[in-house]
Amino acid sequence: MGKRESIGIGLMGLGVIGGGVAKALMEREEAIASQVGCPLRLRKILVRDLAKRRVVEVEPHLLTTDPRQIIDDPEIDIVIEVIGGESPALELIKEAILKGKHVVTANKEVISKHGPELISLAQTKGVDILYEASVGGGIPLIAPFKQDLLANKISAIYAIINGTTNYILTRMASEGLDFSSALKQAQKMGYAEPDPTNDIEGIDAAYKLAILATLAFHTVVRPQDVYHEGISRLSSRDFRYARELGYAIKLLAIAKEKDASIEVRVHPVFIPEDLLLAKVEGVYNAVQVEGDLVGRVMFYGQGAGAFPTSSAVIADVIDLGQRINLGVSITSSLRLDPGKRIKPISEIETRYYLRLSTVDRPGVLAQISKILGDLQISISSVIQRETDVATGSAQIVLMSYPAQEWAMQRALKEIERLEVVKEISNFIRVED
Amino acid sequence: MGKRESIGIGLMGLGVIGGGVAKALMEREEAIASQVGCPLRLRKILVRDLAKRRVVEVEPHLLTTDPRQIIDDPEIDIVIEVIGGESPALELIKEAILKGKHVVTANKEVISKHGPELISLAQTKGVDILYEASVGGGIPLIAPFKQDLLANKISAIYAIINGTTNYILTRMASEGLDFSSALKQAQKMGYAEPDPTNDIEGIDAAYKLAILATLAFHTVVRPQDVYHEGISRLSSRDFRYARELGYAIKLLAIAKEKDASIEVRVHPVFIPEDLLLAKVEGVYNAVQVEGDLVGRVMFYGQGAGAFPTSSAVIADVIDLGQRINLGVSITSSLRLDPGKRIKPISEIETRYYLRLSTVDRPGVLAQISKILGDLQISISSVIQRETDVATGSAQIVLMSYPAQEWAMQRALKEIERLEVVKEISNFIRVED
Repeated sequence: MGKRESIGIGLMGLGVIGGGVAKALMEREEAIASQVGCPLRLRKILVRDLAKRRVVEVEPHLLTTDPRQIIDDPEIDIVIEVIGGESPALELIKEAILKGKHVVTANKEVISKHGPELISLAQTKGVDILYEASVGGGIPLIAPFKQDLLANKISAIYAIINGTTNYILTRMASEGLDFSSALKQAQKMGYAEPDPTNDIEGIDAAYKLAILATLAFHTVVRPQDVYHEGISRLSSRDFRYARELGYAIKLLAIAKEKDASIEVRVHPVFIPEDLLLAKVEGVYNAVQVEGDLVGRVMFYGQGAGAFPTSSAVIADVIDLGQRINLGVSITSSLRLDPGKRIKPISEIETRYYLRLSTVDRPGVLAQISKILGDLQISISSVIQRETDVATGSAQIVLMSYPAQEWAMQRALKEIERLEVVKEISNFIRVED
Repeated sequence: MGKRESIGIGLMGLGVIGGGVAKALMEREEAIASQVGCPLRLRKILVRDLAKRRVVEVEPHLLTTDPRQIIDDPEIDIVIEVIGGESPALELIKEAILKGKHVVTANKEVISKHGPELISLAQTKGVDILYEASVGGGIPLIAPFKQDLLANKISAIYAIINGTTNYILTRMASEGLDFSSALKQAQKMGYAEPDPTNDIEGIDAAYKLAILATLAFHTVVRPQDVYHEGISRLSSRDFRYARELGYAIKLLAIAKEKDASIEVRVHPVFIPEDLLLAKVEGVYNAVQVEGDLVGRVMFYGQGAGAFPTSSAVIADVIDLGQRINLGVSITSSLRLDPGKRIKPISEIETRYYLRLSTVDRPGVLAQISKILGDLQISISSVIQRETDVATGSAQIVLMSYPAQEWAMQRALKEIERLEVVKEISNFIRVED
């Protein structure tokens, strides 16, 4: 089978990401052709509104509002999906695959919810679906899990994979801002959406973690398997105590495997401030992976944005293009190891930071300690201070030794019921 | 072409790395087979001495001192070369390729000196040579350059790619040790060789930088193209001044491309202390890459050691195994863009830190400033102190604005000749 004269591309979506992809495809046509071995031809771009003004200039005849113009075009070999969201992206990807087209997508929601089925479907049709851009923007993450780290048994992933929340936490930590002011700053900078729920509640990170954990542990992890908590409960006080105790606070996506049990969770975490991960600031992402051969590796970069995302999308397109050009049949399959289970959050074991507001009276700490002790939770350190004479209240901060989540949750309920406790101001899991 | 029943492996070298590779191949036989699609069979291991006691237990009949037993075995598909050093590794790799075998190597010296020729040779024989383990141990680096970052025009690489020197510098920075004590500590820990020349003079890093720069800039960069300076001139005083000025000192391997001119150099560098790269400590490696789409990405992990290196070697073996098993013809080629040149060090432009010992007398600084000013070198800050009354000497530290290397070298010669200057204690390039 000889080399191809060209490879046809259909682009679905011309928003921020799609515009970046189109621009990069056009501007570096020659460099890409020299990598692939033949030119790529951008044949059609699916948009919602033909009349809309766009940042990137494309020839008007390329635009269409009809997906069939891409799906039914036999000259299109690769469909790039950058519409985002679950529907209609999922249906369009499926139809493209059914028509024997390769797919490159940046869609974390579709891949985290339907990736395994789409990969199987592609396999039966002799095509491939690549999704490097779905996690961590341009940072190589999917390829390392699919290839470079394959020899390893992965034991843990600790990831900062949501730039919006990392930006907010960085501002809170460095300037003492409270959550709502930091969120407003992030919105002003364009780093947070007008409705920031998906980011600040950890939903976006849960999608991405499901994708990484599926690859790392060779078992299907769905977004609904991922326990998630957001960052809105954090206050500037927590940051002050964290610093005093030698920690940073990050929204981490954590995945661990031990004895064929997998835990996957997204929530704020105390991590030692001297850890490299603790020093990842602003909108940057970082994914730390622990493998039995490789030890600890970390991947760092911009997790979002039109250009970083285009970098990953185009790398996938070049990869497919090279293989199409070689006449190689291209399919991927997910290796799935049997017999693994996903732990409910109640079964995890970790350390805890607990901040309480209590009445300022002798014996308060004894009552709290007794509840914890009865549940086999040992305290590693205590800070008691900030007594507010006017209201007669004290602030108690406790750090525990490793304890089980169900026990800590039960303890929190009992502590909350104590007459001397005014409020459980916060509790945050600790990883070290 | 159907699937293979098995794929034959020949291992050359059973030292620290080879032992790790053999152990990993044997211990995770099943997992690797499930990735590749058929079992790998380790058929022969080339050693120098059959009788030597080894950490890893291998069946004695696998061992041979005769390379022909690997090279002439038609059942061996992939040769893993982990002998290290230039000869006889180079000859053995060539012979293996000529016999139509794929090669996986961890050999930075062979790849940096002969990589382009070996890749061409492999191409003519329809086989491939992979070398992920040659730089940065188990950190995915070669694959990202060959694939994930392909869409980018790379403008710069800043890399800590020698664990020995980073360990020494970390001890000097954190404990105020002088170079020779820190080196002794590194030797005691097994992080530095009895003859540490290759590491501390930047030669090892130059090999690795040549490999990365060749891939990043699509042009052949040889080790002799890489300017290198070691770390033995650094003193604890330099670390104190660095901290005072807000910098860390690292041995960086730097590669930049601008206007088709490439600079490649390894030397101690002042980098801003808040840069993530400045926080890479001990034997860890980190490679920061700047691409026009992806922005700044960084890869971090253990750059050496039997297991991390095995992680990369086995990933390459799995990659080849998968492709052999698919019946795919496998060759790589280096994309080489024409018309690029490598700058001599005299043409680079950077900032400089300069530490001088002078006589303690008015007008000294004026004489030094005049020399610099005449060569268009502007001073951004000055520290003058530590006057030693007994010897009548003063310590002057200067930071310059960006200046050309040839101008700075000429200035240094002229400053050295000044009667009032006792010694140019050190000068270090600054990147920020």
